[in-house]
Amino acid sequence: MDVRAAVAYQAGKPLEVTTVQLDGPRAGEVLVEIKATGICHTDEFTLSGADPEGQFPAILGHEGAGIVVDVGPGVTSLKKGDHVIPLYTPECRQCEYCLNPKTNLCQAIRTTQGAGVMPDGTSRFSIEGKPILHYMGTSTFANYTVLPEIALAKIREDAPFDKVCYIGCGVTTGIGAVINTAKVEIGSKAIVFGLGGIGLNVLQGLRLAGADMIVGVDLNNGKKDMATRFGMTHFVNPSEVEGDLVAYLVNLTRGGADYTFDATGNVKVMRTALEASHKGWGTSIIIGVAPAGAEISTRPFQLVTGRNWRGTAFGGARGRTDVPKIVDWYMEGKIEIDPMITHTMPLSDINKGFDLMHSGESIRSVVIY
Amino acid sequence: MDVRAAVAYQAGKPLEVTTVQLDGPRAGEVLVEIKATGICHTDEFTLSGADPEGQFPAILGHEGAGIVVDVGPGVTSLKKGDHVIPLYTPECRQCEYCLNPKTNLCQAIRTTQGAGVMPDGTSRFSIEGKPILHYMGTSTFANYTVLPEIALAKIREDAPFDKVCYIGCGVTTGIGAVINTAKVEIGSKAIVFGLGGIGLNVLQGLRLAGADMIVGVDLNNGKKDMATRFGMTHFVNPSEVEGDLVAYLVNLTRGGADYTFDATGNVKVMRTALEASHKGWGTSIIIGVAPAGAEISTRPFQLVTGRNWRGTAFGGARGRTDVPKIVDWYMEGKIEIDPMITHTMPLSDINKGFDLMHSGESIRSVVIY
Repeated sequence: MDVRAAVAYQAGKPLEVTTVQLDGPRAGEVLVEIKATGICHTDEFTLSGADPEGQFPAILGHEGAGIVVDVGPGVTSLKKGDHVIPLYTPECRQCEYCLNPKTNLCQAIRTTQGAGVMPDGTSRFSIEGKPILHYMGTSTFANYTVLPEIALAKIREDAPFDKVCYIGCGVTTGIGAVINTAKVEIGSKAIVFGLGGIGLNVLQGLRLAGADMIVGVDLNNGKKDMATRFGMTHFVNPSEVEGDLVAYLVNLTRGGADYTFDATGNVKVMRTALEASHKGWGTSIIIGVAPAGAEISTRPFQLVTGRNWRGTAFGGARGRTDVPKIVDWYMEGKIEIDPMITHTMPLSDINKGFDLMHSGESIRSVVIY
Repeated sequence: MDVRAAVAYQAGKPLEVTTVQLDGPRAGEVLVEIKATGICHTDEFTLSGADPEGQFPAILGHEGAGIVVDVGPGVTSLKKGDHVIPLYTPECRQCEYCLNPKTNLCQAIRTTQGAGVMPDGTSRFSIEGKPILHYMGTSTFANYTVLPEIALAKIREDAPFDKVCYIGCGVTTGIGAVINTAKVEIGSKAIVFGLGGIGLNVLQGLRLAGADMIVGVDLNNGKKDMATRFGMTHFVNPSEVEGDLVAYLVNLTRGGADYTFDATGNVKVMRTALEASHKGWGTSIIIGVAPAGAEISTRPFQLVTGRNWRGTAFGGARGRTDVPKIVDWYMEGKIEIDPMITHTMPLSDINKGFDLMHSGESIRSVVIY
């Protein structure tokens, strides 16, 4: 079938919106009509050429929501008409990782997903017979896409696509880092570094978890109001702090935070986040993606005196299990999404969404098909 | 009173065994007759001058066992005749740290202990009226010493001093890293880097915890037999591995170890230990003390893909609570200590104990008073 898609032909160039051929779903696969998709920094990371694993030509996009149109042979958990959110971290419920309660990193289709193809080793997308690669197993920058059954979360039908698509990445990553990875307890003190989209979702995760003190750190004072709306109780602009930032934050939190979160991707900030966590029991969670080759470092004494250094991917969430719950939380008003969707646009304007991200004008731009 | 002690007058010089004046216990303090003390690498670290916090003249030693001789006003938990093990990590059971189940780092007397004095700010040791500093709050290189009540674990009276003194540091550090910090589960796979005294105790901690695969890594093949005796199931000499050590260990453990332990103090080994732990859930524990200024580093991707980097001090043990239990385990045959006490000597020969450590001939030398 013909679909409309934004194709990334090569790194560093804008996407090209064009018509692409999409083959129907094969065994274990599902054809989904994408109704909305967010534009995430990870798409930008790959499109820019900074992603060492980026491959072209490909159809990017990994933060979508849509409706099942058709299912291939053997698909049992989904049927035509089901509302779904694509999962770049699938949940097969059978692999060694899915069966270990300590991780969400299902490995069932990791190799082929990384290679930009479906589990059978081929792509469903093509232009004039030449294959176009999938991306993160999702390729939501197309109005129809094919995914493995294990990479789709079934969600309630009254949830608006143009909002809950954000749960496909940013919302779950931020809230999940708090709830699944850090397992923040009621009454905790926390510091969030970087108040972009992920940071805001960490903030509301902390509010949901009942944290007492929620410190936001950002170089841009313009982030303060929105962060406060999402639960921040104290704001710190490092450029306005005299002396050592770690010492300032340790003093502010009376000994360091129980939990700190890096949502910047800057390895120096990751170190600050670790060292601003509390001696004896502080846990610091890395969420941000660092540039290729960048390394974190610290004195081992920081760990020997009781700090934990951890990371999280997709918020430690098991997509098929947890994403529907987060959709429920949104629909019940437990979490907010609407104020973070600052811009919407048709697919034909998708490059404007990337421009808005570059300029820092948007929190999240969403393409509505 | 006059006591016999080994005095560290300055960094880099041998200890001087001489007579020292010891004042009696003040409020909250206890006078202990030390019956035996191990000689630990941390004593050596300070004596060598490498310890940036080392102070002289001081009476070193922190791995002792003895008998209560007298108690100061207000002491309620100990009485004359009680058998005790000094604790360089005290347990006041009242501070913010003692009341937090996530840590063992009691802060009640941290500042004065670090300054080499008792909690009232003065030393009990002197020579001709000039104060000699305490060390780690314990100063077990003297046949009598004074300690705060909160820095003494009461143990059973049938336990041999010349063996259980080792529980005052090395045994508890190694076993505790497994049990308290890592909380290793039955059936786990583990790798221990460095098969000295701490490493051997990590091994027997892993055996006690029911680990399935216990890999020991050391450059010295001579460590193999003793390590096997303490529970090691596989030995790896990195100098005999062709290619990348991490890849070798990940292959050996079929994906990486659930838990890895650094008992070397080498920051490069600490990185190897982290990266040889399993994607998704591996935890790497730093036990070794690194040289001043040394830093650990890795790509943040290692953490984002689910590895945890942690450290441990005194094996995460709460001394007054946990040390008596470990003494019981020794007396009941659950753990072994005797083969690790390779040398014993009178105080007059204490410098020979340091020499044996330098040459690698001893696992643990113990001074018997």
